[in-house]
Amino acid sequence: MTLKVNLDAQFARFSETWSPKIIANLDDYEIKLTRLKGDFPWHAHGNADEMFFILEGRLRMEFRDRVELIAPGELIVIPKGVEHRPIADEGEVKVLLIEHKDVVNTGDGPASIRTKAAEKLS
Amino acid sequence: MTLKVNLDAQFARFSETWSPKIIANLDDYEIKLTRLKGDFPWHAHGNADEMFFILEGRLRMEFRDRVELIAPGELIVIPKGVEHRPIADEGEVKVLLIEHKDVVNTGDGPASIRTKAAEKLS
Repeated sequence: MTLKVNLDAQFARFSETWSPKIIANLDDYEIKLTRLKGDFPWHAHGNADEMFFILEGRLRMEFRDRVELIAPGELIVIPKGVEHRPIADEGEVKVLLIEHKDVVNTGDGPASIRTKAAEKLS
Repeated sequence: MTLKVNLDAQFARFSETWSPKIIANLDDYEIKLTRLKGDFPWHAHGNADEMFFILEGRLRMEFRDRVELIAPGELIVIPKGVEHRPIADEGEVKVLLIEHKDVVNTGDGPASIRTKAAEKLS
């Protein structure tokens, strides 16, 4: 049994965007890879923080009062309850995402076309 | 207020090895940076998984029954209760570490010279 995970090898196994893939679990949290391209609806996660670590590309994270541009080698934790909208408008962005396993990608509101349960890559 | 964290900029703020620095929190978890060089004692964390994501250098993770070599762009989750020993014997290794805030770096046994509470970099 090997426990280590090579991120490039796992990214090579899928091409869909906005469809997080679980590569490992950490207690009740999921460690996921996702490809982002284009925009995503405004949402918030009332009970959970969410970490985005940018591996490739540049992510524009919009908040109601400002915008943060996040580059490779940078991470951001979206605090619970804070409305945000990730936008990948300069091409595809590869992200390492960590959040509690019960988090729904589109947040606490009604489901949308972007609502997607994370799938296990294994 | 900015929420994003640039990992290189934070690494530039410390040089000690085996002394994790907290760069962000995710619910009850800490996101930390650490520099590793040389070896560390055998230990286990009975109640918590622990994620190592390698940013630079190569880490040798010893288990009682095998060894895994972990390179940049690879991560490993050490399952709770599993004895392990991280060794950085090819030079310094830079790691992004994520684990529950109550985890002690040297595990559940008696404290040693390597026991160190994570400090907040802010």
